[in-house]
Amino acid sequence: MLQAQIITIGDEILIGQVIDTNSAWLATQFNALGIKVSRIWSIADTREAIHGALDDVPGDVDVVVMTGGLGPTKDDITKGALAEWFSSGWKTDELVLERVKEHFSSRGIEMPAVNADQARLPEKADALHNAYGTAPGMWFEKNNTVFISMPGVPFEMKYIFEHQAVPKIKEHFEQSEILHKTIMTQGIGESSLMSLISDWEEDLAKDNIKLAYLPSPGIVRLRLSLFGGNMLDGRILLQDRVRQVLPMIQDYAFAFDDEKLEQNVGKLLRHGGFSMSTAESCTGGYISHLITSISGSSDYYHGSAITYTNVSKQSILGVSGDFLKQYGAVSEAVALQMAEGVQKLYGTDFSIATTGVAGPGGGSPEKPVGTVWIGIATPQGSFARKFLMGSHRERNIRRTALQAMQMLRKEIVKALEISSIEALFIEE
Amino acid sequence: MLQAQIITIGDEILIGQVIDTNSAWLATQFNALGIKVSRIWSIADTREAIHGALDDVPGDVDVVVMTGGLGPTKDDITKGALAEWFSSGWKTDELVLERVKEHFSSRGIEMPAVNADQARLPEKADALHNAYGTAPGMWFEKNNTVFISMPGVPFEMKYIFEHQAVPKIKEHFEQSEILHKTIMTQGIGESSLMSLISDWEEDLAKDNIKLAYLPSPGIVRLRLSLFGGNMLDGRILLQDRVRQVLPMIQDYAFAFDDEKLEQNVGKLLRHGGFSMSTAESCTGGYISHLITSISGSSDYYHGSAITYTNVSKQSILGVSGDFLKQYGAVSEAVALQMAEGVQKLYGTDFSIATTGVAGPGGGSPEKPVGTVWIGIATPQGSFARKFLMGSHRERNIRRTALQAMQMLRKEIVKALEISSIEALFIEE
Repeated sequence: MLQAQIITIGDEILIGQVIDTNSAWLATQFNALGIKVSRIWSIADTREAIHGALDDVPGDVDVVVMTGGLGPTKDDITKGALAEWFSSGWKTDELVLERVKEHFSSRGIEMPAVNADQARLPEKADALHNAYGTAPGMWFEKNNTVFISMPGVPFEMKYIFEHQAVPKIKEHFEQSEILHKTIMTQGIGESSLMSLISDWEEDLAKDNIKLAYLPSPGIVRLRLSLFGGNMLDGRILLQDRVRQVLPMIQDYAFAFDDEKLEQNVGKLLRHGGFSMSTAESCTGGYISHLITSISGSSDYYHGSAITYTNVSKQSILGVSGDFLKQYGAVSEAVALQMAEGVQKLYGTDFSIATTGVAGPGGGSPEKPVGTVWIGIATPQGSFARKFLMGSHRERNIRRTALQAMQMLRKEIVKALEISSIEALFIEE
Repeated sequence: MLQAQIITIGDEILIGQVIDTNSAWLATQFNALGIKVSRIWSIADTREAIHGALDDVPGDVDVVVMTGGLGPTKDDITKGALAEWFSSGWKTDELVLERVKEHFSSRGIEMPAVNADQARLPEKADALHNAYGTAPGMWFEKNNTVFISMPGVPFEMKYIFEHQAVPKIKEHFEQSEILHKTIMTQGIGESSLMSLISDWEEDLAKDNIKLAYLPSPGIVRLRLSLFGGNMLDGRILLQDRVRQVLPMIQDYAFAFDDEKLEQNVGKLLRHGGFSMSTAESCTGGYISHLITSISGSSDYYHGSAITYTNVSKQSILGVSGDFLKQYGAVSEAVALQMAEGVQKLYGTDFSIATTGVAGPGGGSPEKPVGTVWIGIATPQGSFARKFLMGSHRERNIRRTALQAMQMLRKEIVKALEISSIEALFIEE
């Protein structure tokens, strides 16, 4: 199996100012190409650190991808360090120069002089066209290893990798494959999930399938992996194992293969021709943001009332002032009225309402930080449930949003008159 | 200067299923401790990969932190691999066992049998208490290097590091310091920013100050770094340089040291005793989410109307049906009416409205994808501006939100009757 390593260059990662999302994206791409990533490294943007890392790459690594350090500004020194390491002279790439000029003229901006340098490349490098920026990627070969250098700005890097590097990699190598199948679950912790499916898990070894539990706040992903072998058989094997486990976890499983809960909810709404709205207090717009982050969501999403005050809960959503006084804003009665109020306000089939104490302040003995009521309105009626989400604001907001979308999802599945397992196999 | 390396263990990062946010957080912590992170690595969760990485750590590294692979489930093998590498036998830590039992009983759940194993530790390890989960951290020493192993779940890891590891690290070492000062800018690209401040930048070398441009969609951070030397003098040097550059970038600079724009807006609103609301169409709740992600935001944030349909723009915000017909939803007239409508609806001093074509669908020759109108209402009146944000949905939403908050910020600064530079120095 081919082996890749990913090197991220830049102090900003080593001092924690920037999170390395590029490597995760690149790893997914390599995985899809059937190339195994054996190491991801972040190093400083100094000549020594770059040379040191390149010297340390084991000889059996087939592809090394470097990101970062190719911008026009003075802190970027990768290009020079690479020219040295590959013992390369310099050339001016006229095509790149043309593109850099175009990049600025199309925005009606004069090209800053410093950007002309971006067309200056090590002689031994092939330029990889950058459609979204001025710094081209570079492709080097040394011994039997390919070295690809790209700018660190995510959308530029992604363009170069997908459109320039991947075709060249495919041309250059023969690939085998890894098969993965991931089941997305919400509402159950890692160890409880494990207890539920331990016999099934025990049995996976027979087929040489590896299982991983990947927890993140509110979500646990179950990943089955199968390396090498006959791929058609492998797919069938994985599918059979997935079919076996689904009845054990049907209350929690909502999708496959990194489909997000908000995508899944959108897909099911569209499938039934349904619409939805939200009334958010403690989640402050996060549910709306997740739902509308999906393109085409305007087909089923009508809108939200983010009512952060009692007055607006009354005037916009029609929540009763007596209820607010009697039960408080964080209560079953108010969650129900918010859900019903927004369903009516936007004229939608379904709605979600959240009201809670997100924290870190605002808790009381009866309603500690993390107390949340989620209301759901459906064409058949409405209901609300109480949760204790913990004491961490950001995590509370996320967990509440996921829990609310899962509750809504179950109601949509009921309205579609299908089983929760059938719902998993609905195609867009 | 002390040197640290961070090793993240787990296939989920190497296949790109999980983004490594732990390392960024740890790097920030080390930075604050005055310990330089020289490398961050991600490796597979196999015995071989773990032993290989530990063998590869250079002898002059003082602290190695490992995260991941300590959960109760069967894919987690770090603990065994560490016991082997440190040639250690096993012990049962009674304190840990007690805490694991408590963890489950406090939630009214019976302890799954597998969790008892979490109290089984390598003899040579000191346990680091985990207040949020069942897997303890571990502290090993070998030759002159400290090795810390922690679970990968972020909030568990953060607790263990802050409350258990940091005090032990401080006890163990003497530290020097790195000084950083970061200026946050919005609304200008990396190379244009560079052109604006090139003379100033040139001059930094005199003081041995390093400058980095850290771009992310809509935001460029300017980071000044000074290594070693007298720290009091260093702070004054950095401060002077910052004071020099601010007048050149006052249209773009909004804060220092990773303060977010939403924090900054909140701080300024609170300073003036002002309130705000939002009316979001194309940003779909993202602005509300950002604003309410700040704890205490209910002091100044009253709410939002996320109007994703024309009908709701009319009925909730009072946008004129004639305007919608004549100019379309993405227009100056509608942005203005949305801003004024929501200002009135929630009775706030300020408001933001967004309406645009987020994409990837929905564009037209007159209003291509990325066309956005942002409306701002203030106590003195209202205005709207048009932007072209590009063709990428997620980036559009983020850029629009940042631009809108920056526009609002400038209006708040005006209302406070201070200069934009004075505003940067307002304390919470």
